[in-house]
Amino acid sequence: MLETASHDPRLVGLGETQAEPCTLVIFGGGGDLAKRKLLPAVYNLALDGVLPKNFAVLGFGRRDLSDTQYRSFACEGIDQFSRQALDAKHWSDYEQSLFFLQGDFDDAKAFAALKTRLTEIDSARGVPGNRVFYFSIPPALIETCITQLKAAGLIRPPGDSQHFSRVIVEKPIGRDLESARRINATLAQVLDERQIFRIDHYLGKETVQNILVMRFGNSILEPLWNQKYIDHVQITVAEAEGVGTRAGYYEQAGALRDMVQNHILQLLSLTAMEPPWAITSDIVRDNKLAVLNCLRPVEDCTQCVVRAQYAAGKYQDNDVPGYRREENVEPDSTTETYVAIKTFVDNWRWAGVPFYLRTGKRLAKRASEITVQFKDVPPILFNLDPKNPIEPNMLTLRIQPDEGFSLRVATKMPGTKVRLRPVKMDFQYDTAFEDQSPEAYERLLLDVMAGDATLFMRRDEVEASWTWITNILQAWENNGTRWLPEYVGGSWGPVEADRLIEADGRKWHTRS
Amino acid sequence: MLETASHDPRLVGLGETQAEPCTLVIFGGGGDLAKRKLLPAVYNLALDGVLPKNFAVLGFGRRDLSDTQYRSFACEGIDQFSRQALDAKHWSDYEQSLFFLQGDFDDAKAFAALKTRLTEIDSARGVPGNRVFYFSIPPALIETCITQLKAAGLIRPPGDSQHFSRVIVEKPIGRDLESARRINATLAQVLDERQIFRIDHYLGKETVQNILVMRFGNSILEPLWNQKYIDHVQITVAEAEGVGTRAGYYEQAGALRDMVQNHILQLLSLTAMEPPWAITSDIVRDNKLAVLNCLRPVEDCTQCVVRAQYAAGKYQDNDVPGYRREENVEPDSTTETYVAIKTFVDNWRWAGVPFYLRTGKRLAKRASEITVQFKDVPPILFNLDPKNPIEPNMLTLRIQPDEGFSLRVATKMPGTKVRLRPVKMDFQYDTAFEDQSPEAYERLLLDVMAGDATLFMRRDEVEASWTWITNILQAWENNGTRWLPEYVGGSWGPVEADRLIEADGRKWHTRS
Repeated sequence: MLETASHDPRLVGLGETQAEPCTLVIFGGGGDLAKRKLLPAVYNLALDGVLPKNFAVLGFGRRDLSDTQYRSFACEGIDQFSRQALDAKHWSDYEQSLFFLQGDFDDAKAFAALKTRLTEIDSARGVPGNRVFYFSIPPALIETCITQLKAAGLIRPPGDSQHFSRVIVEKPIGRDLESARRINATLAQVLDERQIFRIDHYLGKETVQNILVMRFGNSILEPLWNQKYIDHVQITVAEAEGVGTRAGYYEQAGALRDMVQNHILQLLSLTAMEPPWAITSDIVRDNKLAVLNCLRPVEDCTQCVVRAQYAAGKYQDNDVPGYRREENVEPDSTTETYVAIKTFVDNWRWAGVPFYLRTGKRLAKRASEITVQFKDVPPILFNLDPKNPIEPNMLTLRIQPDEGFSLRVATKMPGTKVRLRPVKMDFQYDTAFEDQSPEAYERLLLDVMAGDATLFMRRDEVEASWTWITNILQAWENNGTRWLPEYVGGSWGPVEADRLIEADGRKWHTRS
Repeated sequence: MLETASHDPRLVGLGETQAEPCTLVIFGGGGDLAKRKLLPAVYNLALDGVLPKNFAVLGFGRRDLSDTQYRSFACEGIDQFSRQALDAKHWSDYEQSLFFLQGDFDDAKAFAALKTRLTEIDSARGVPGNRVFYFSIPPALIETCITQLKAAGLIRPPGDSQHFSRVIVEKPIGRDLESARRINATLAQVLDERQIFRIDHYLGKETVQNILVMRFGNSILEPLWNQKYIDHVQITVAEAEGVGTRAGYYEQAGALRDMVQNHILQLLSLTAMEPPWAITSDIVRDNKLAVLNCLRPVEDCTQCVVRAQYAAGKYQDNDVPGYRREENVEPDSTTETYVAIKTFVDNWRWAGVPFYLRTGKRLAKRASEITVQFKDVPPILFNLDPKNPIEPNMLTLRIQPDEGFSLRVATKMPGTKVRLRPVKMDFQYDTAFEDQSPEAYERLLLDVMAGDATLFMRRDEVEASWTWITNILQAWENNGTRWLPEYVGGSWGPVEADRLIEADGRKWHTRS
């Protein structure tokens, strides 16, 4: 709606600020994320003409690749994973902006070489010394890399008005509160918070960004968005796949760390936050932080948390093994692949409204969504029969797949009697918009180049979410985690999770 | 939702009460309405198995038809106009319930014959003396017929617990307040108000009945349904056809009497009424009446009423004449074929919320709908650009055609910038329900047999609406109605109507 590329600070979070000329340095540039996501994302931005004119990508990592080989590597990734097809004519020009440098992150010489190479690229591509360092590396290497960058003189002070140095850090930021604090402290020794971009790609998704647009771009929702009219909220992030090849990481993480600490708590924050007075990084993140700080600490896990692990079952009509039989999983693993939590946001808006969260692998269907169930219609007029109540209104925001939203309303069934039936008013992105949605990484990379941190997690947010999560982790430890319930692969989770919500007279909404 | 055919008085208006054995006497039984609507409606009720077991139809009128001929007449009507096809097997049994009696309404002997014939039918069909008299006759004949019925001893007193006599009266009930009062007084001399069913077939439409279901079967609407959240309401009843063969009546009536006094004010009452505590005839009609009584009297027609007449134009790509060139229309007729009105419901709920009403013949499209436009989103966050504001939420109830409802919401357009676009969440009856909707007359006839007057207009309602309408009629008279604006046939009405609403910074919503 905002056509003017204004300098109005209220527009910062709307993607209206300009990406600045820079070089994107991908640590682990020859890796899987670079190939599948980052290089295709940058290429799409180039095709869409939104990249800064003076721009380069420098892959940095242990693989022995020439610039030419790296360009082929990028080309392959784009061929396989890009949302827009590779345009041969455009490519021959574009590939000139891609470079690779081999180096070991432990090796100070490699960073000296990096510095030299960046200076060369600066002059070759007309980049004024601005750098975005993308850490697509294991968390254990963050400290090494940041220290080396600093030592090599590659980090500009935050106040430098000439050039910027920004660092993108991938999740996981730690595995509990203590380790997250350690990583943040390491980063803070070298970087100002404004230079750090903690990425959760969920926040770059169109449908996640749309949560705020829905809430604050429509006058009818905000008056209803509180404990007076909302019965409860459900947030589901369900995966149909099993652990796949990620057991090495997952065995140490589990569903709570892997999904709840980041994605689900981010969805919860956006759903529950107070209206920001501007969509700027500080205002939005202050308000999200307030939600996390209002989350009721889990005191008795047996009352409000269910953890479980998938047993053998079905996936796309094939038999699939239970979690403990997966490759690289311990045969007596007690890692949870499913977690369901009932929690509350203890503030005026949400007093008494339960938030039911759940996530799991090997569930019946891949489906991420937020459902807001409104209160029952009073038991008068059309809702007189207690045995056959009207199903209450429900707003569903479908994050993925089948992106869109729907509202369940009661309507009269055709007929001479007045009988009510719930029907869905629906909206689907893909049928309404011809334009493809950009990938999450496209928006996020562009935001970093523009210095807009609205869609990135601030230190205090990360630590607030770990505070709440660590509480649960500790409770599990205290209770002993030797035994945990199982659920059939391809089902909607363990019976214990049904009991959790059914004890409140409610039930999980599952996509049909 | 209510499975029990209970005697709970709160269920009366829900179509749950039982139709009682009776004979339906159609005055004007050989006429057009009987053929097109009434006989097919009764047949569909029979097919659906909801007619009382002991039931008969007796056509009564000037045509010289035997029972057999009347059965053929009914058969033709059903063939052409019934929503369900004639079932030959069922028909042979069913047609035994149809009878015809020739008679002149001025003739006391005809009514004596009617009485005899009804007694014969009673014993032939096992009907216990209950009668529904349907007056499908010109208003001028109402007094005659009701007096004759009374004189012939065919009207039971209302308190008669053995047998009932009910009379259905078609619109128009009068042509101004005085004449409406006269008709009502005539009816009241012979009948108790509980015996009188003033029919407005609009109220039998599924989508009209659904107004209350939407409002009170969904918990999210009532909190928003007031001046705090609603900017304005539009009610449109647009016809694409011209006056056709109805000029004889229409020349004396005009759009205000023909459409606003009944259909539009009924839609307005249902939209604006306070929540009834039960869907019973008295509660619902008390609350509708309150709305009519709150309608702000029109004092200065030049400020809030536009009347106009269609000029030559297009209809379905054919040239069509202006109103004054239509058959049986005076060449200097000043009858309005279009009227637009801005009014207010002066109570707490609707203080300051304009209701824009309009109806006309020869408009661009046949479309009856109610649109509720909610207030603007505050000019913060996504709504900063005054030149390009977010379109506010709008709920549209489509009465006909394309029955259903939609909600306009703002959503994020795909892309790296945050741009908003309004999209529609939609629901259509015909795609959602396999069952056909019954015709309005089906529900209404059944209601009369069950003694349920909820969907019929009470005397005070009719007079309240005439009070408001007569005010406008008088203002027109005082202002002189010699000149009135024209609009091109097939357009959306005169430019004056656009100015009426645009002066408030709003515009008519027209169906695409």
